[in-house]
Amino acid sequence: MRFASTQAAADAILAGDLRAGARLMRMLDDRVPGATDVLRRLYPHTGRAQVIGVTGNPGSGKSTLCSRLIAHYRTLGKTVGVLAVDPSSPFSGGAILGDRIRMMEHAADPGVFIRSLATRGALGGLTRSTGDIVHVLDAMGFDIILIETVGVGQDEIDIVRTADTTVVVLVPGLGDDIQAIKAGILEIADVFVVNKADVDGADRAIGDLRGMQMLLSVMPEWLPPIVPTVAARGEGVAALAGEVEKHRQFLLTSPTRVERERARAAFVVTGLAREACSRQVDGWLRGNADGVALVSEVAARRCDPYAAAEQAMTAALVGSPAL
Amino acid sequence: MRFASTQAAADAILAGDLRAGARLMRMLDDRVPGATDVLRRLYPHTGRAQVIGVTGNPGSGKSTLCSRLIAHYRTLGKTVGVLAVDPSSPFSGGAILGDRIRMMEHAADPGVFIRSLATRGALGGLTRSTGDIVHVLDAMGFDIILIETVGVGQDEIDIVRTADTTVVVLVPGLGDDIQAIKAGILEIADVFVVNKADVDGADRAIGDLRGMQMLLSVMPEWLPPIVPTVAARGEGVAALAGEVEKHRQFLLTSPTRVERERARAAFVVTGLAREACSRQVDGWLRGNADGVALVSEVAARRCDPYAAAEQAMTAALVGSPAL
Repeated sequence: MRFASTQAAADAILAGDLRAGARLMRMLDDRVPGATDVLRRLYPHTGRAQVIGVTGNPGSGKSTLCSRLIAHYRTLGKTVGVLAVDPSSPFSGGAILGDRIRMMEHAADPGVFIRSLATRGALGGLTRSTGDIVHVLDAMGFDIILIETVGVGQDEIDIVRTADTTVVVLVPGLGDDIQAIKAGILEIADVFVVNKADVDGADRAIGDLRGMQMLLSVMPEWLPPIVPTVAARGEGVAALAGEVEKHRQFLLTSPTRVERERARAAFVVTGLAREACSRQVDGWLRGNADGVALVSEVAARRCDPYAAAEQAMTAALVGSPAL
Repeated sequence: MRFASTQAAADAILAGDLRAGARLMRMLDDRVPGATDVLRRLYPHTGRAQVIGVTGNPGSGKSTLCSRLIAHYRTLGKTVGVLAVDPSSPFSGGAILGDRIRMMEHAADPGVFIRSLATRGALGGLTRSTGDIVHVLDAMGFDIILIETVGVGQDEIDIVRTADTTVVVLVPGLGDDIQAIKAGILEIADVFVVNKADVDGADRAIGDLRGMQMLLSVMPEWLPPIVPTVAARGEGVAALAGEVEKHRQFLLTSPTRVERERARAAFVVTGLAREACSRQVDGWLRGNADGVALVSEVAARRCDPYAAAEQAMTAALVGSPAL
C-alpha cells in the first residue's frame, strides 16, 4: 500500500483504516521522508483516546494483565490499540508459547490493534517512536491505548509519562521488594497493582506500599490506589479498570488539568528536539569532512569533547534545525 | 573547599587531591558554572586509566563481584575509582546491610574512591554525568575505573559504551535465561561472567552462551570469554581480572584501535550535544514568553509538536548553542 498524498494518508487513518495506520507506522520506523508530514495533519485530531501506561519488571505478569484488560474493555465495546515496548513481551512475539497463545485471541479481533516496538540503538528514538505511534493510534480512533513497558530505565519512565494514567505492576518477592523500587517508578504511578496477590508476601507488599504512602508529608491531590490482582485468573481486573476510570474522572475535573497538559506538551517537544539534535550532530560528525576531522582531534585528546560538542551543534544545527 | 581558579582546581585534581576531585564532582552535579571549564583543562591528561564497565541485572551479584575485583586490584598495588550508577547498589548505600558492610572495607582505603550516581530525571544527563566523572577519576590518576550499572535500559548500555572493557554478569535461572537476554546487552559484552556458578543450571547457562557464540556467521576479532565465578566466595575473580587484562592487551594491539577510539569520541560528543540541546530547549519553553505560549498552543492541539520542536530548536539554539 502506498499513499497517493499526505492528505490521502491522513484521511484514511482518520477514517480508521487499519492498513493505512500500519503503513504510516512502518514509514515512521523507516524514517521515510513525508511520514512526519502525515503526523502533523493527524495531530489536531488526537487527544480523544484514553492512554494507559502499564509498567513493571519482567516477571510481574504485566503482559497477562494487559491481555485481561483488553478483554475487559472489549466486553464494554471499546476498541483498544496496544503498544508493547518491552521486547520480551508476548505482544512483541518474544515470549513463552502459552502467553503468545493467550494473546492470539486478540489478534483475530478487528477491535484490537497490536504494535510492538523494540529499542532502536544508541541514538535513542524510543521515546519519539512511542509518541508518534500513540498519535497514530489516537487518530485511528481507538478508545483505549495501552502502552506496555518494562519499567526500569529512563526511556521507559519517559514513555509512560506520555500516558494519561500510569499503572505500576508490582509482585510480592521476586527481588523487587517494595523498598528496593526505584523512586522514579513510585513517582510515576497513578495506580498500583500488586499482582500474584494469592502468593505469600502479598499482604506485606500491600502493607509496605500503604506505609510508604502514609509517610508522605503532604497528601497529594490524587493518592494512588493499590489494587491486588491475580492476572492469570482474571481476578481484580475489573477493579483495576474501575480505578483507572476514577483516575480519568479525576484528571478531567482536576484544577491542575491544564498544567498537566502543558507539562506533557513541553515534554514531547523537548524530546523531539533532543532526538533531532542527536541525529543531526551524529550525521555531521560522520558525513562532513570537518566533523570527521573534529572526531579525530577528540580521540587524540587534542580537542576536548565539550568544545567539540559546541562546535558540532553550531555546524550541524545553526540555520537548519530539522526533525 | 572552594577553588581559587580553574587552573588551581585542575592542578589539584591532577595532583591526585581526593577532596578536590570530590568537590568538582559535586559542582558538576549542581551544574555550577565553570565546572565544565575545569573538565576542559583535565581532558588532555585523561586516557591513562583502564575503564571497566560491569553490568548485570539486579540480583546477579555484580556488586559483590565489583567489591572482589577492587580487592584484587588493590593487592596488585593499583588504585581504583568506582562509579556506581545503580541506585540499589550497595556502593550507592541503597542495599542490604551485609553488602554494605562488605563495601566498607574499601571505604577506609585511600587507594579506593567510590562515587555513586542516581538517575537525574526526565532530561537525562545520566550519560553525560558518567562521562564527566570518569574524566575526573582518570585525571585524578586512578589506575582502574570500575563503572557498575544495572544492565537493562538504554542509558546503562550507553554508559558502558564509554568503558574500555565491558563485563556482563549473568546468573543461572532467576528469570534472565540466556535466550531472553536483550540483544543489546550481548553486543556490548567483552567478557561474560556466569556468577553463582555453583548453583544448578550454571553449566547449562555457560553452554547456552557458548552455543550462541558458535552461531555467529563471522568470527569476531575478539570472542568474549565466559568466566564462571562465585563472587560471594571470591572464586573466579583472579581469572576474570586475567581475561580483562587480555582484552586490554587486545585493544592496545588491535588494528581497529583508532577506529574504536574515534567511535567512542563521536559517541561522547553526540551525547553532550543531545543533552545540551535538551536543556536549552527545555529552558526556552519554560522561561521565554514565546516558548511558554508555544507550549500552550501544542497542549491545545492548535500547533503540532513537530513544528513546535523545530521552532524551539531554532529559537533556543541558533546563534548560541552552549553546553
